[in-house]
Amino acid sequence: MAAPSLQSFCLPWLLLVLLFMALFASASALPKTIPRLGVLRGELNPEKSEAALASEDLETYYYDQTLDHFNYKPESYAIFKQRYMVSYKHWHGAHVAAPIFAYLGEESSVDDDVKGIGFLSDNAARFGALIVYIEHRYYGKSVPFGGFQNETLKNATERGYFNSAQALADYAEVLTYLKQKLSAEASPIIVIGGSYGGMLASWFRLKYPHIALGALASSAPILYFDGVTPAEAYYDVVTKDFRETSESCYNTIKMSWSEIDRVAAKQDGLSILSKKFKACKPLDSASALKNYLDNMYTGAAQYDRPPRYPVTVVCSGIDGETTEGSDLLDKIAAGMFAYRGEKDCYQLQDFFPSETRLGWNWQVCSDIVIPIGVGNDTMFPPSPFNMTDNTEYCKEKYGVTPRPHWVTTYYGGQNIKQVLRRFASNIIFSNGLRDPYSSGGVLEDISHTVVAVSTKQGSHCLDILPARKEEDPEWLVMQRNIELEIINGWILKYYEDLLKELERN
Amino acid sequence: MAAPSLQSFCLPWLLLVLLFMALFASASALPKTIPRLGVLRGELNPEKSEAALASEDLETYYYDQTLDHFNYKPESYAIFKQRYMVSYKHWHGAHVAAPIFAYLGEESSVDDDVKGIGFLSDNAARFGALIVYIEHRYYGKSVPFGGFQNETLKNATERGYFNSAQALADYAEVLTYLKQKLSAEASPIIVIGGSYGGMLASWFRLKYPHIALGALASSAPILYFDGVTPAEAYYDVVTKDFRETSESCYNTIKMSWSEIDRVAAKQDGLSILSKKFKACKPLDSASALKNYLDNMYTGAAQYDRPPRYPVTVVCSGIDGETTEGSDLLDKIAAGMFAYRGEKDCYQLQDFFPSETRLGWNWQVCSDIVIPIGVGNDTMFPPSPFNMTDNTEYCKEKYGVTPRPHWVTTYYGGQNIKQVLRRFASNIIFSNGLRDPYSSGGVLEDISHTVVAVSTKQGSHCLDILPARKEEDPEWLVMQRNIELEIINGWILKYYEDLLKELERN
Repeated sequence: MAAPSLQSFCLPWLLLVLLFMALFASASALPKTIPRLGVLRGELNPEKSEAALASEDLETYYYDQTLDHFNYKPESYAIFKQRYMVSYKHWHGAHVAAPIFAYLGEESSVDDDVKGIGFLSDNAARFGALIVYIEHRYYGKSVPFGGFQNETLKNATERGYFNSAQALADYAEVLTYLKQKLSAEASPIIVIGGSYGGMLASWFRLKYPHIALGALASSAPILYFDGVTPAEAYYDVVTKDFRETSESCYNTIKMSWSEIDRVAAKQDGLSILSKKFKACKPLDSASALKNYLDNMYTGAAQYDRPPRYPVTVVCSGIDGETTEGSDLLDKIAAGMFAYRGEKDCYQLQDFFPSETRLGWNWQVCSDIVIPIGVGNDTMFPPSPFNMTDNTEYCKEKYGVTPRPHWVTTYYGGQNIKQVLRRFASNIIFSNGLRDPYSSGGVLEDISHTVVAVSTKQGSHCLDILPARKEEDPEWLVMQRNIELEIINGWILKYYEDLLKELERN
Repeated sequence: MAAPSLQSFCLPWLLLVLLFMALFASASALPKTIPRLGVLRGELNPEKSEAALASEDLETYYYDQTLDHFNYKPESYAIFKQRYMVSYKHWHGAHVAAPIFAYLGEESSVDDDVKGIGFLSDNAARFGALIVYIEHRYYGKSVPFGGFQNETLKNATERGYFNSAQALADYAEVLTYLKQKLSAEASPIIVIGGSYGGMLASWFRLKYPHIALGALASSAPILYFDGVTPAEAYYDVVTKDFRETSESCYNTIKMSWSEIDRVAAKQDGLSILSKKFKACKPLDSASALKNYLDNMYTGAAQYDRPPRYPVTVVCSGIDGETTEGSDLLDKIAAGMFAYRGEKDCYQLQDFFPSETRLGWNWQVCSDIVIPIGVGNDTMFPPSPFNMTDNTEYCKEKYGVTPRPHWVTTYYGGQNIKQVLRRFASNIIFSNGLRDPYSSGGVLEDISHTVVAVSTKQGSHCLDILPARKEEDPEWLVMQRNIELEIINGWILKYYEDLLKELERN
């Protein structure tokens, strides 16, 4: 059953961030085009599978984490409490070097991960594995400087330590410490993450191979940086998803944007729209509605997964609206009602920003600069990505400029095949091709052990959500089995090496 | 011919640092045992080979370097000028993707490297390679905050950005920029470094494989951290070097320490010693003399190389002192005179600290924590490494505590064979086994492409010093040839891949 806190998590975030940005930044001089910043996470699985982790199996700990791993100023040594959770339930123990599955937190509270992710709990028994969830700095209960993300993010100095390189170093410290504490130095660690967390997992294997034996990077768009992937790719896939589902649905959506503008331009246009779309609070602008719909479509595509298949739901609503006298926007509204479920009214604007949105908005303005624009041939109004606008927006909002080249400088990304063909090992890049972020993912094997496992019908992070015995389609079951076989192979090879070494000594 | 500035560089530094530390820290409450902090660099080759780089071939540039790559505070964005030098002389150009040899500076001015290192200039023609020397931050002309290392190191905030992770990120930025500037994106980069710079080179290949195709890490004691190598290993090798050269020399040195103490304890003991050792300024203490000698022996062993073989020189002096009436300390003094050359007097204490010493003393008190102690079975008085004393000393001196586990956490080092057996590629760890630091080096192949190239008779960084056509022994010529063959293999394989890719597209 869905917990209320998860329900609120089920909304895709792209539009929310855009709205939030518009809302909070309207007082200051903004660039004309509010940039579409990359947004990764959203819907976790609201229904827990039988196998998902029961909270009673989890122990919560706090690690005294170093604020700044990369400098040696007196203030670098400040400590904050970083939360992590451990389940010993299935672990076969240090004496047999039983493995450790470590989930590397992304832009949310670890509470959400524990409830929403299934891969570790579904498979720990089979591997006799310890389960660890580590919370990302500046989210949940792992916020430095007093613990209030909201306050910390307002402080230019305090938020400055909030980035991916520091987060990876946090994970390195926690995992090293944990191994020592458990005398489990010989236990192989497999790191797992999804979306931004998937990027972290693959980067962690690249940067800290001495700590993690391998990484499962689910839906990690590590190539959506610095021009490696075209900025338009994301919306191209969203459009493809809708068009493949229903040509008429795609056409209706494509025509709707100008229709919204046309109606909004009438004297009582916003009232008409508010009524048509059952807005809880009268719409302030046509943009608010358009952003809401944009976010709905992208979210539906990103999480277009069984058993519900949101794109099909939206399109069924749109295509099914054939009541006499209904116009194009009635169809759009019907799609929305179908997707969101029948309600008295809908919250189309003025969302209270979640910590995920607040934190992520900073991250995409500092190191995680994912350029997303809308090309000319989609079902959305064209809106090319503009780095200058993006930089100006971030500078205005945070006082510092993003570093769009940093990810490719520090982690790589250009010519990834040639670079990693003979370097690195043990990384699975898993993707579902209906996920618009798969366009920035690694979709082909790089070597025998740096491999891509994609499914045509899959969506964002689907493989690491809890398995549903009866409902999961065969291709999904197969994808997970392939991943498990690969991980098993890494671990077996590791044990082989370990035995050989023991024999030698 | 040796330039005067280089002459001063020809002294090994271990004792100098100890002296300096004693000198500058005597006012404050110090732990009883002044810790022996790891000291890497010293003697560069004072005589330039014919092949060494003529300064007229070098262009000097300054890159606008980011002060703090790992944070996003307003002050992180400060810029400093980082110096690098380029020789285009032998480069076959970007159009044929001709290689780039990049020397990653260590704890000194790049001027010293250009004069003292030969590997790049000796071999650039053969490879048609561009040569780049990059200066390490906080040395030479690459000092942030106004450019005066001396001043900057006194400021707890300003020196806080001075560490290896930031330095590697500097190199990543400079090399990425340089490739772009030269449209040489396809040119493979081989990074080269010696001693601490050798560690940086191997770490750079591990952390930035997308920027460097391979690394030659000369005399890089990457395992001399965090208990991976026993703290006593360094002095064990020094002792072995002397004992292998002359058993009687070894015995004389072994007995000398208590003899110095015995003489010093006499009423006019320090005068006797000052006279015997021709001190320019009367000795303040027996320790000053002992530190000087300790430094001399370790330096002689570390740089025990042809054509001079300093250990042999020292021992010839010691063993050869058979003048009637000469005592044990006359023998030691004779060894010193032989090594340093006959002079009217010798500067045994109160050295003016060089920027290398000043900078390195900070580095070993922050991230590069190399624990060196003296075990029970050497020719030196036992002096075990004590981490508590070390930490206390650094804290007293700099206000912050060293992070002795950071190097192994960030770069690895534990179980390096198992970790890198199936990860990483294209690293040469070269060592000379007479170099005491070889005890912390990688001395066995880890995989087919992460290899060890050691010579029994070699010393610290010998392979990257300028070749001397007539004088170099065969084993040294062979070592360099093996290294060149390996590097050539990397580059050929890279071109093969590149061609395949071009054919595919």
